[in-house]
Amino acid sequence: MSTPRTEKIRWGILGTAKIAAKVARAIDLAPNAELIAIASRDHRRAASWAAARDLEHSYGSYDALLEDPEIDAVYIPLPPSLHREWTIKAAEKSKHVLCEKPLALNAAEARDMASACKDNGVQLMDGVMWIHHQRSDEIKNILTEGALGELRRLTAAFSFNGKLQNSENIRAQKELGGGSLGDLGYYCVRAIIWAFESLPTKAFATARFCDGVDFNLSALLWFEGERMATFDCGFDTVARKWFEIAGTQASLVCDDFVVPQQEALARYWIHGSSAETDSRHSVEAGIQEVRMIERFSNLAHSGKLEEKWPNDAIATMQVCDALLESAHCNQIIQLDSTP
Amino acid sequence: MSTPRTEKIRWGILGTAKIAAKVARAIDLAPNAELIAIASRDHRRAASWAAARDLEHSYGSYDALLEDPEIDAVYIPLPPSLHREWTIKAAEKSKHVLCEKPLALNAAEARDMASACKDNGVQLMDGVMWIHHQRSDEIKNILTEGALGELRRLTAAFSFNGKLQNSENIRAQKELGGGSLGDLGYYCVRAIIWAFESLPTKAFATARFCDGVDFNLSALLWFEGERMATFDCGFDTVARKWFEIAGTQASLVCDDFVVPQQEALARYWIHGSSAETDSRHSVEAGIQEVRMIERFSNLAHSGKLEEKWPNDAIATMQVCDALLESAHCNQIIQLDSTP
Repeated sequence: MSTPRTEKIRWGILGTAKIAAKVARAIDLAPNAELIAIASRDHRRAASWAAARDLEHSYGSYDALLEDPEIDAVYIPLPPSLHREWTIKAAEKSKHVLCEKPLALNAAEARDMASACKDNGVQLMDGVMWIHHQRSDEIKNILTEGALGELRRLTAAFSFNGKLQNSENIRAQKELGGGSLGDLGYYCVRAIIWAFESLPTKAFATARFCDGVDFNLSALLWFEGERMATFDCGFDTVARKWFEIAGTQASLVCDDFVVPQQEALARYWIHGSSAETDSRHSVEAGIQEVRMIERFSNLAHSGKLEEKWPNDAIATMQVCDALLESAHCNQIIQLDSTP
Repeated sequence: MSTPRTEKIRWGILGTAKIAAKVARAIDLAPNAELIAIASRDHRRAASWAAARDLEHSYGSYDALLEDPEIDAVYIPLPPSLHREWTIKAAEKSKHVLCEKPLALNAAEARDMASACKDNGVQLMDGVMWIHHQRSDEIKNILTEGALGELRRLTAAFSFNGKLQNSENIRAQKELGGGSLGDLGYYCVRAIIWAFESLPTKAFATARFCDGVDFNLSALLWFEGERMATFDCGFDTVARKWFEIAGTQASLVCDDFVVPQQEALARYWIHGSSAETDSRHSVEAGIQEVRMIERFSNLAHSGKLEEKWPNDAIATMQVCDALLESAHCNQIIQLDSTP
């Protein structure tokens, strides 16, 4: 593991995808992080991206960035098909890795990545921003305290109307790891694992495939303890990003769990058994991606790696694998309970 | 068909189930209806029920009520296992029949009931109150006008925590036609058929059975035109009664579709592709069960029977049959497209 030379973790970004700008801003805003380098296969693009943000370094290849000894951590916003390769290369250069979701093309790749990071003493985390929001912590406490009673069902939806049919968009390219499950459903799966704190025992899904890419998918997941989860994701339906968690005593609704409508004021509702018990809750909070960068930088700085993050990402991939398999064969898939 | 002797349709009720009180009030409030008789297998119970409501007649058997020539229409709140028998007997006595849901134990029974009513020139309708609400008309117009774009998904939930395990409640009795699908999911299925105006092509469900009764059920339904519907129902989760209809351009959420929280002011929301396009809508409306009675009484009075009502009920039962079959065999069931 690289030893930080400053108080701040020094970041590099592999690629200039749109999401990189959002994370660059988060690195700027995080008190313990600093963005110092960008890489693109097109050096001019990297140079102009760096100039616009006053970065120290721009590189014309990802390898060149990884060779930079000043860099402690990298953010990887590359297409999913490249996540395994560049995460492992980064780990081998002792860089901590924050990798966009889906973490990999499948759970086997994700395990390889986790092993490489562990072997090289660096942190691995997938870029699930919402889970770092204070609202998520607050909701998680509500679940843990049993305020909803015994949990029974989680229902979620994440979609947007991407007009991706016959598109060049990465999301629609099979060979790049596109598909609505990895792009959108991944968040729903994570929410389910996060809420239920276990892997499903069985999975069923149905999907609409276009050129081998799932443009939408509907999933049904069985959990021990009489718990069920369902979700849908898709590129062909208007923007939705909600979940409902229902227990024996109350239900909790979050209508914008992926990204709060208001950056600094996030909301959710709790519904009891009658209208009188309904309540609306607001959480004044920091920006979720800033919290993610801050948390990750703290881990990198402390050197106390948390296996929870790669493990949760592997579990998410494992469920995604089972769902895709089910969607292809139209059968219920039994899950191996060891992540 | 009996010819009404007054402007008002004269009603009788078979049984003193709790829901009968609600419908009795609706008959009182409807301008074209009048409740004149109640029957119970326990004559004292019928007499006291009649006395409390100042009714003309009480009967100690359902047959006796059906013999009353003054009665034009009956409401049947008996357990589902008795719906077929008493609907057919009522039809044979030329009474119009408003029968509680589920209309029958299965679609075959429902068809028998519809035939008997048709043969005797009387209207058959199932007691789905919400569909008669002005809000439902307004939402239906929104769907028809295409304000949500092409419809893609309907998600619904209807549950309550009934503590019915080892209970004497009809809902928990297999031989009486109990189960969460017939009791609660029936409304979700109807909402789906109502919104999509077609039968699903395939059905999948998973359920938790206790003594042969589905205490909860999760359903997945496929429709032509890239449309999917999912819902859950159950006796083991806190009260929920919502649906979300999502199209390519917008989604519509109704969080109390079965019974509006406020009797005279019903609400729903429309969400576009961004927060700026969100809107809340309120419908000042009459009481849904009064509208149901008024509509039914109008049909009975006019003698112009509407086949839509028995047909929709049969279609609902057909989907319920497929879902229960699926839940038992863990397979996707293909639906016959002829109702």
